[in-house]
Amino acid sequence: MIKLKNPERSQWDKLTQRPSLPSEDLKNKVGDILENVKQRGDTALIEYAQLFDNVALKNLQVSKEEIQLAISCIGDTLKDAIQFASENIYVFHASQKEEEKIIETRPGVSCWRKSIAIEKVGIYIPGGTAPLFSTVLMLGIPAKIAGCKEIILCTPPNSQGKIEPAIIYTANLIGIEKIYKVGGAQAIAAMSFGTETIPSVSKLFGPGNQYVTKAKELALNHGLAIDMPAGPSEVLVIADGTSNSDYVAADLLSQAEHGTDSQVILLSTSDEITRKTLMAIKSQMINLPRKSIVEKALENSYAITFDDINFCFDFSNLYAPEHLIIASDHADDYVDKIINAGSVFLGNYSCESAGDYASGTNHTLPTSGYAKQYSGTSLDSFIKKITFQKISKTGLENIGSAIEVMAESEGLMAHKNAVSIRLKS
Amino acid sequence: MIKLKNPERSQWDKLTQRPSLPSEDLKNKVGDILENVKQRGDTALIEYAQLFDNVALKNLQVSKEEIQLAISCIGDTLKDAIQFASENIYVFHASQKEEEKIIETRPGVSCWRKSIAIEKVGIYIPGGTAPLFSTVLMLGIPAKIAGCKEIILCTPPNSQGKIEPAIIYTANLIGIEKIYKVGGAQAIAAMSFGTETIPSVSKLFGPGNQYVTKAKELALNHGLAIDMPAGPSEVLVIADGTSNSDYVAADLLSQAEHGTDSQVILLSTSDEITRKTLMAIKSQMINLPRKSIVEKALENSYAITFDDINFCFDFSNLYAPEHLIIASDHADDYVDKIINAGSVFLGNYSCESAGDYASGTNHTLPTSGYAKQYSGTSLDSFIKKITFQKISKTGLENIGSAIEVMAESEGLMAHKNAVSIRLKS
Repeated sequence: MIKLKNPERSQWDKLTQRPSLPSEDLKNKVGDILENVKQRGDTALIEYAQLFDNVALKNLQVSKEEIQLAISCIGDTLKDAIQFASENIYVFHASQKEEEKIIETRPGVSCWRKSIAIEKVGIYIPGGTAPLFSTVLMLGIPAKIAGCKEIILCTPPNSQGKIEPAIIYTANLIGIEKIYKVGGAQAIAAMSFGTETIPSVSKLFGPGNQYVTKAKELALNHGLAIDMPAGPSEVLVIADGTSNSDYVAADLLSQAEHGTDSQVILLSTSDEITRKTLMAIKSQMINLPRKSIVEKALENSYAITFDDINFCFDFSNLYAPEHLIIASDHADDYVDKIINAGSVFLGNYSCESAGDYASGTNHTLPTSGYAKQYSGTSLDSFIKKITFQKISKTGLENIGSAIEVMAESEGLMAHKNAVSIRLKS
Repeated sequence: MIKLKNPERSQWDKLTQRPSLPSEDLKNKVGDILENVKQRGDTALIEYAQLFDNVALKNLQVSKEEIQLAISCIGDTLKDAIQFASENIYVFHASQKEEEKIIETRPGVSCWRKSIAIEKVGIYIPGGTAPLFSTVLMLGIPAKIAGCKEIILCTPPNSQGKIEPAIIYTANLIGIEKIYKVGGAQAIAAMSFGTETIPSVSKLFGPGNQYVTKAKELALNHGLAIDMPAGPSEVLVIADGTSNSDYVAADLLSQAEHGTDSQVILLSTSDEITRKTLMAIKSQMINLPRKSIVEKALENSYAITFDDINFCFDFSNLYAPEHLIIASDHADDYVDKIINAGSVFLGNYSCESAGDYASGTNHTLPTSGYAKQYSGTSLDSFIKKITFQKISKTGLENIGSAIEVMAESEGLMAHKNAVSIRLKS
């Protein structure tokens, strides 16, 4: 990690910048994949499986037999853990349901919002080094609570044409029936346009590599919505004299193991905690199976000491971290200083892993500074709120003249007439 | 309008399609404008004002004197109408505030969401044929309720370098102090990147022509968020034997006058209402000042009669209209049939104009079928919801083993360690 002490404000913009990715070449490659899948459907998907996943697929959809087999592969300990986590995630996301509030803005003028599920949603789950069945919970559970009618899942097969059993098990547990063996940009294309086998959806969810991310971005130009723009995962920890350096080190490492492009930032008001944390990182990382990923991630990472705790929060708000851990016994006192963050962990026992798996909060969060203007995934992500209004004759009499005056001022006489014709009769 | 009776389902996809706009050439033009403003700031803006607005601007920001002058231009009748509408909009949007709910998913594990305003937002108000001061209310009021710290407004100057007084008056009324004389794609560029005069923002709001729309789309690639993708405005009216054909005609015309690319659709179960409505359209449009726009818009528009009211709703849900009017005495009975729409108007007195100006609902709504997956603008559009969690030692003891099991199954041992190290001590 790069160590800094009290960096000048003029440096902060640079320090809070994320590394930018090469774009134009990627865009052309991904654009070609989208177009090919749009034109040639399943045939293109099967060719890409051969090319990228090195497998000759016969069927794109996971069969009932494969689902049963996956279920039988999962041990009871893991089943219990998944069940336990899913209950917490369910409870927290179900609490996000909003009751309809009818507001009478003037006598006879009633306005309200009604939450209705997005009918068709698609979930992408990456394959690769970590089979993220936890993300199936994080996206599938709120989709089910919202009442989405069609929830489909795409994830890449391995070279034997198989999907990680825990992903199948988890999808089946929460009631996702349609699972497809398709990965990468081609999966995003399939869910965007539909193919002979895979239905098209209205909104795309889930993490992925740079191809998947670019494909989701391009899908926006084809009438799709996406959960949020994505970038490498990141954590920022704010520590003070009451922090436990072993815990802080463990939290920073848990983020660093996600990928070589992950970034972890330690802001501290205590030189001693910084020093001890850096030592603890060294000793804890020795035995990590993903040590080489961690080492690379730490190269892009900072340990910054500030004399003033307020500077820690100012810097953090400028960085707008995906995960923000306030590793302090005084965490509650700092809550109001937080303006930009995806998810916040308060106190020395609130580790990021808890939110990643089992506390109940969602782990699909805005990265790359997008926490300035985006929320993490929640029940809201799977619904739209439709406004309704019901106006009685009296109601229109009460608000009609204001409408007429404003419409006429904007030069929209037909807008005015729609009121006048009713008030006249 | 194109008249159809009971069209086959196989035709519906085609009938619900919106006309697509030319894209590649526009993209290059707008991309150049973005890059020029990014590189050359105010200088580029002043050059574009000369080129597109035919005016040599000395200052980009509307001065205090200009604001005072604008206020003095507005008559009391319009002032009262704007005040009246703004109160209704305020009441409805303030009711969208959510209380913090702390959910204890397990003993010692507390999770909640906190709504925090997006710090910096930019509002675009088009110039052109209708000076939309009503949109200033629709975007400015929820931004103020949310508590956005910086709210800026861009709108094109006329060839005298002036802004429509009603726009300045309305912005000033709701407390927007920074108003800039910049229009088109260059305004979106200025708010995205910032210039010497105009501050950059995190999220862009507001309608506009195809240049503005494309610029907002491209701004997504530069770390900005936007309110929603935009297309031509549209209304769908569902009528039955209880409808008033004069009112229906007036509502269809009020939408058709927005622009030549607007679309209006009448679905009816009554041949007589359809016939009478088409006649009423002819007679009502004679005296409209925007008659030529209306005529053009009606060419792309449909009047469809179905024998079954359920087909009307099926068609409407496939079309996903921006505005949906249920022109029926039985409107309440149909509410549960509505799945996709931006804003719904129930009953024969709920005209779209009411929601456009003064009932309290927002008029910035998803068009082009985006109502399938997007909500209209609301208080939600100006905030993000940050999740918080606070876990006690007991809390972590309660959920720790589930986290350990799941992390290990995903092969993320540092995630597991972050829990284990705490449980051990």
